[in-house]
Amino acid sequence: MVVVMQEGAKEEQIQHVIDRLVSMGFDIHRSTGASQTVLGAVGVPADFDPRDVEVLDGVREVVRITQPYKLASRAFRSQGTVVELPRGVRIGGNEIVVAAGPCSVETPEQIGMIADRVAKAGAKILRGGAFKPRSSPYSFQGHGEKGLKMMREAAEKSGLLVCSEVMDASQIQMMLPYIDIFQVGARNMQNYFLLRALGTVSKPVLLKRGMSATIEELLLSAEYIMAGGNHNVILCERGIRTFETATRNTLEIAAIPEIKKLSHLPIVVDPSHGTGIRDKVPPMARASVAAGADGLLLEVHNDPEHALSDGAQSLFFEQFEKLMAELRIIAPAVSRTIA
Amino acid sequence: MVVVMQEGAKEEQIQHVIDRLVSMGFDIHRSTGASQTVLGAVGVPADFDPRDVEVLDGVREVVRITQPYKLASRAFRSQGTVVELPRGVRIGGNEIVVAAGPCSVETPEQIGMIADRVAKAGAKILRGGAFKPRSSPYSFQGHGEKGLKMMREAAEKSGLLVCSEVMDASQIQMMLPYIDIFQVGARNMQNYFLLRALGTVSKPVLLKRGMSATIEELLLSAEYIMAGGNHNVILCERGIRTFETATRNTLEIAAIPEIKKLSHLPIVVDPSHGTGIRDKVPPMARASVAAGADGLLLEVHNDPEHALSDGAQSLFFEQFEKLMAELRIIAPAVSRTIA
Amino acid sequence: MVVVMQEGAKEEQIQHVIDRLVSMGFDIHRSTGASQTVLGAVGVPADFDPRDVEVLDGVREVVRITQPYKLASRAFRSQGTVVELPRGVRIGGNEIVVAAGPCSVETPEQIGMIADRVAKAGAKILRGGAFKPRSSPYSFQGHGEKGLKMMREAAEKSGLLVCSEVMDASQIQMMLPYIDIFQVGARNMQNYFLLRALGTVSKPVLLKRGMSATIEELLLSAEYIMAGGNHNVILCERGIRTFETATRNTLEIAAIPEIKKLSHLPIVVDPSHGTGIRDKVPPMARASVAAGADGLLLEVHNDPEHALSDGAQSLFFEQFEKLMAELRIIAPAVSRTIA
Amino acid sequence: MVVVMQEGAKEEQIQHVIDRLVSMGFDIHRSTGASQTVLGAVGVPADFDPRDVEVLDGVREVVRITQPYKLASRAFRSQGTVVELPRGVRIGGNEIVVAAGPCSVETPEQIGMIADRVAKAGAKILRGGAFKPRSSPYSFQGHGEKGLKMMREAAEKSGLLVCSEVMDASQIQMMLPYIDIFQVGARNMQNYFLLRALGTVSKPVLLKRGMSATIEELLLSAEYIMAGGNHNVILCERGIRTFETATRNTLEIAAIPEIKKLSHLPIVVDPSHGTGIRDKVPPMARASVAAGADGLLLEVHNDPEHALSDGAQSLFFEQFEKLMAELRIIAPAVSRTIA
Repeated sequence: MVVVMQEGAKEEQIQHVIDRLVSMGFDIHRSTGASQTVLGAVGVPADFDPRDVEVLDGVREVVRITQPYKLASRAFRSQGTVVELPRGVRIGGNEIVVAAGPCSVETPEQIGMIADRVAKAGAKILRGGAFKPRSSPYSFQGHGEKGLKMMREAAEKSGLLVCSEVMDASQIQMMLPYIDIFQVGARNMQNYFLLRALGTVSKPVLLKRGMSATIEELLLSAEYIMAGGNHNVILCERGIRTFETATRNTLEIAAIPEIKKLSHLPIVVDPSHGTGIRDKVPPMARASVAAGADGLLLEVHNDPEHALSDGAQSLFFEQFEKLMAELRIIAPAVSRTIA
Repeated sequence: MVVVMQEGAKEEQIQHVIDRLVSMGFDIHRSTGASQTVLGAVGVPADFDPRDVEVLDGVREVVRITQPYKLASRAFRSQGTVVELPRGVRIGGNEIVVAAGPCSVETPEQIGMIADRVAKAGAKILRGGAFKPRSSPYSFQGHGEKGLKMMREAAEKSGLLVCSEVMDASQIQMMLPYIDIFQVGARNMQNYFLLRALGTVSKPVLLKRGMSATIEELLLSAEYIMAGGNHNVILCERGIRTFETATRNTLEIAAIPEIKKLSHLPIVVDPSHGTGIRDKVPPMARASVAAGADGLLLEVHNDPEHALSDGAQSLFFEQFEKLMAELRIIAPAVSRTIA
Repeated sequence: MVVVMQEGAKEEQIQHVIDRLVSMGFDIHRSTGASQTVLGAVGVPADFDPRDVEVLDGVREVVRITQPYKLASRAFRSQGTVVELPRGVRIGGNEIVVAAGPCSVETPEQIGMIADRVAKAGAKILRGGAFKPRSSPYSFQGHGEKGLKMMREAAEKSGLLVCSEVMDASQIQMMLPYIDIFQVGARNMQNYFLLRALGTVSKPVLLKRGMSATIEELLLSAEYIMAGGNHNVILCERGIRTFETATRNTLEIAAIPEIKKLSHLPIVVDPSHGTGIRDKVPPMARASVAAGADGLLLEVHNDPEHALSDGAQSLFFEQFEKLMAELRIIAPAVSRTIA
Repeated sequence: MVVVMQEGAKEEQIQHVIDRLVSMGFDIHRSTGASQTVLGAVGVPADFDPRDVEVLDGVREVVRITQPYKLASRAFRSQGTVVELPRGVRIGGNEIVVAAGPCSVETPEQIGMIADRVAKAGAKILRGGAFKPRSSPYSFQGHGEKGLKMMREAAEKSGLLVCSEVMDASQIQMMLPYIDIFQVGARNMQNYFLLRALGTVSKPVLLKRGMSATIEELLLSAEYIMAGGNHNVILCERGIRTFETATRNTLEIAAIPEIKKLSHLPIVVDPSHGTGIRDKVPPMARASVAAGADGLLLEVHNDPEHALSDGAQSLFFEQFEKLMAELRIIAPAVSRTIA
């Protein structure tokens, strides 16, 4: 940590800051310049709040120079993490992995038909919602365990894995037999009760970035899960909230290379929620792969016009198949493969 | 809802849209203009997703004209709600109510001393954290039930009520005897499990606005609680996330008159979290009252330099007392009183 | 335009709104529903401000349903505009066009060497700054006309066109002989004096999106130029300002398909300014092409470590050549070619 | 400046960074810690771009610790600047100064009537637009010099000063006899040609914050004017662009105390443009004064329903008079006076 004193700070102010820092457990290096004094403080405790120094008299600015996360940082593990899943599926390896499926699981027939079709087109994971976080209390909230059962059966028949959202710690045990990946939704990215509970389970967690979460906060939330012992975290960019309303969210494609630099965890992209509208999903899916994403989450539906939720952002089967073909053209440009 | 067709939309496209809307249960009024057709659709179901129409061929734009919340809207109740609390405290009435206290409850002595002092200066409610949502898993997470017990005792002695944060539905029953107001933190504003659970309790809920939540989303979250039967919801502005980093968050003072227009629920402001730094708390507290807030949440600490959390944004006793005196000057400008 | 009255609006309020609208020149269609009255108003004048109706008593919301721009809209011209330039270069056609060069023109040797190298790698346009808008008054502000002369000579030798930024209307005449495309910088996107002046020149204008400009505002600024008679406008996405600071700006890749939907004008991307840091330029350039961009603006420098400005975001020659090879792999995925 | 090396950076990488910094003219202090090396670099040139170091191998982060502006900083002048104007009006002194008037000057009668009325209510400055920057090329663009003449005459009769917007450097000479304060609009905050030209005039400049400008950028734009010799700059907060659309802009009240801390320049607030809607102007004007603003810019119109522009955000005379009375109640809370 570096503490920059104001120009003209008095010697007694500087001494008070040094005394406070020493009492907090820091070692201090002092540099006295022509106009300003700068203090280097070594040994920052994990829960240190830089503002505690910022408010001291004579301080102009405090700069934290260590990242607040450890297990999630690239420094902790210089090689990229590969999350190993059943059926030989690996996220973070050379192959780009596609998860596809409906927003909500509706009927056994629906989910079966979708699983079959996306598997044939190259998807490795069936995604679908059994518990739906809806902004209105009057909207369809999902089929719950019944929906998970339908997904599992459909996935087994088609040779797919299952990824579905967990909304509360109380659901974890029940969900374990049905799913291969726990998905944490954007609205729950800082639900620390849930994150801590997922730190102790034996299955990977796909953690979606909150709509207004910085990349640092996303990595801190991953740290919550990893600190509990579960290092199989897959990060997911799904769009941030900005002033622009022409697009529902702003999918931050540049987060892909940024996260690759800061962390060893794999990063996938959800262009369906990230754009909210079907016609933008293929261009953004192509852009994600071209920018280096490790995988994609795509909403695909057999009959989007009659879907129980998010039909507007679900791809038709033909669109999904065409997209997969396009991705196969792009993958070699980033030295990757795709099924 | 109004559906605007593209210029040059074909008659068969228009008919398809009308057919879809009718099958969804709408009554349709069609206006054919020189260059454009506009469809008025009456009878929007609560869970209708306008994007389902937006994606149909020939549609340019869909405009929802009913608010997605009902119980929380000003139309539902034209007079402002007054939340009635023990000891005759009323939030939303003519008197501006101040809740004050430390970020974290630390010891019985600390909380007792603070309660005593803020009560004397005019606070009616003791606020303090027993469960702390922290962005780092390595930070102090609060004293839990022990902390609540300390708060209750301190409050009783000083004639104050208690407001404290609930982080998970599983804590509600345990907390009930200790607190008068359940606080829902910004990060949990869309934790629908928690909101639904709070809809069935008998005590008021103070609902903080999420960092990237629109005012509409805040009111939809209030709706979740009210739909369960608990109409005693107090809204709280605590700053939104913007591009500006000189201030920690951007406290949106204009949300106060906007919420007064849209909703009948009382609105209070938390300038401590909304600014993150002590020196900005008094000006923003004064601004909130001048703009019409029904109350304030203020962090006050007996020794902010050694507080276990958020010391940098906690007021010294003297600052709090000076601020209360300033607020008493301002209150008459908005025809209000303050203790 | 649609005017939604409040539930319970009085008949006299509704009549007052109708009278006002009629006096403004609108034709009115009234729909009276069970709970609400909705007024359709036809014939919106170009300079109508919907807020003039919003503030009338009893009005809940006013929804404008015509776009405020005309010449720039897709409805005005359903086929995409192709901007035709000398040497057979066409922007908006099947071939993706790359403009490359240094942030600032420094010396004849520097610009000559860069022009030569980027031309060989497939660039068609030499980009470079002679006038530099710098946020600090103490920074290097460019070589002015001398710099333009150097660019022109270098471009001629290498068979390239020239694109350079105009900062003020007073520079236009002087620049005309040196450049093929006038670039308008992000900070000048709403400098209406400059836009109007460019509406009367005979050369194309590359208009960069302002850092906080919506897509609608970008198209309105294009409209300023087009309204003067110059229809050769090339739009440029270069990143918007959001809360995220890990990346310098947030390059909005989804703006590409959105602009293609709303407008017939070609859209290019500047990933150098859009990311601000060299290592993110290739992934974002690839993403832009994969999402359907008509061209790219790339900063390339012979010695980025000693560039007079923006060296950190300039590509080394080898990086540029590698990137061009990757783009050649991606282009067929969007049925495009690249030199 | 502080350069933080990556954990595990190699000695040769560290040496390369040191060599580069020395060649740029810095003095270097090196601190070698257990896991990281930190370099302190003293003597940052004004136009130094930290990214030039950020991109070097082995560097994790570069932290600039000097502010990029000088003349505008509080360190340059610890006492607040008071801008002295004719008729004894002083901005930045103990008295809060109110500028009021219509968005556009329309007729001599209109502006005369408004000047008379606002002067009686306590305004000291007549504000009004003769040149209007409009986002649509088809909107009313102002009466130009004729409008300025009308304003001057009205102001003289009522004992007011005149403040009006300059849109281009070419207008300055013509405007000088008519106005007392040049206003620079939000869209021109980074029009450096204009700022530089205003640096050499003898009259004060009111500089509005751009919609997406940080406070640092606002101060850098003030620096452009001051570097030319004109130190009479008045800053103006007028709302920033955020994700929230319920309010037209987000008026950042916290910018007032923040700017007071960073700079010695006076800061006024424009709640009319900052909210865009009449009913929010009084609460936000009160909030601004309560937070410490040095003045207000308010749109007032004799007949807002028929104003040529921005009628929706203009106050009726009675509203303005009521507001002035409320502000007189609030001013003593911040130890200020108001006429």
